[in-house]
This record gives sequence, structure tokens and C-alpha cells, in this order.
Amino acid sequence: MSNAKALPLLESPAAPCCPPLSERPLTAEESVRTATMFKALGDPVRLRLFSMVASHEGGEACVCDISDVGVSQPTVSHHLKKLKDAGLLTSERRGTWVYYRVEPSVVAAMGQLLTARD
Amino acid sequence: MSNAKALPLLESPAAPCCPPLSERPLTAEESVRTATMFKALGDPVRLRLFSMVASHEGGEACVCDISDVGVSQPTVSHHLKKLKDAGLLTSERRGTWVYYRVEPSVVAAMGQLLTARD
Repeated sequence: MSNAKALPLLESPAAPCCPPLSERPLTAEESVRTATMFKALGDPVRLRLFSMVASHEGGEACVCDISDVGVSQPTVSHHLKKLKDAGLLTSERRGTWVYYRVEPSVVAAMGQLLTARD
Repeated sequence: MSNAKALPLLESPAAPCCPPLSERPLTAEESVRTATMFKALGDPVRLRLFSMVASHEGGEACVCDISDVGVSQPTVSHHLKKLKDAGLLTSERRGTWVYYRVEPSVVAAMGQLLTARD
């Protein structure tokens, strides 16, 4: 299954709030909320793990699917949890493993912030 | 002048390299380069300043245009320099002031990373 083509924007309570950054300045409160999400992708290992989950078959991955990133499995779990805490991933336990999936509304809203205004 | 509508993607040497994160995992080298840019937006004050430059009349701003962010002018300058170092802003000195402008190719490439694959 590929990720949804038409992304539901701004439906998640965790989603950034805002129009493209070129349209108007963020308020202090908006920037606190939104910076958390950019910060979560601001670490090379975490960004790479995020891309592994995002591009994994079926749109989800567990720690068991991810290797070869040069860090231990507990460190992978730690980073995935940070991405989840930032609202970028959701998780579901199934049997032994926790499966992670990209939260498309949050990622799409981040992408929207970076688009140019008309 | 508003920002260009049709953004020239991936033309800057500083631009992230890559297709949407949902398409394939980033390599280690790609994620190091790209995480730097997300990290630059991962601080609330810096993100807010970035939005102020991006949305400022004429698409550019100097420290003299930016106030009311709760930090001193030297701190504003420091953050703007960090955004420049990350490739998100360009700068030009004119008289007393340095003017900052968003680098649209880099920002568009970051936005592209966050789009869903078809």
C-alpha cells in the first residue's frame, strides 16, 4: 500500500497549524509547536529512520524491519519514540513488535509550511 | 514582490538532494546533509524569524525590520546567520544593514521531501 495521494490536511490535533511561512509570520505559540516537528527531523539518524518507515512496504515498519543504520536496536527504538512524541509517527503494538506508520496529516502540513505563496 | 510561484527545484548546491521521503530511504550521507536544514528550523525563535523573513514585504528583511520576538538584536543576527549557514537564507549587505532573503530552491526541496509519493 502506498501512502495516500490526497492527504487530509490539518486534521490531526498534532498537526502544525499554519499557512505557508511566506504568507505571514508565525506567532510565538505556533512556532513553539511547529519547531518541535522540524527538530524531530533535524537529526541525521532520526531523519533516515523516518525515511525508512515512510518508504517501507505497506507504509509501516517495526524495529525488526530496520537495520544497517549504524546504531543499536534500542537506539532505533528511542529515535522512533521521539518521532512519535513529535506527532510524525503513530504506533501500534502487534504481538512482539511495535509497528510505526507515518502520520500523513502532520507531514503534509509541514510540507505546506514550506510551499511558496501564490 | 512575492516569492516565485514556480520554484526552481534542486538548483542550489545547498539544496537537499532527494525525492519524497516516502519513495526511498535516505542514504547516510543524504540524511546528514538534509537534517542540517530541518535542524535549522527546529528552534522556535529561529523558525519564527524565518517566517518573518519569508513573509516580509519584498521577500527580504534585515535585522532592522524584525522586532518583537523577545530576543535582542544580536541574538536575531545570530539566528539569521545560522539559517544562512544551513542554506535556507541568502544575504546581501546594503549600506549599514545585511538583508536576508529566503533561498526558494532549498525550501522547495525540503517541502518536496515531505510530499507523498503518487
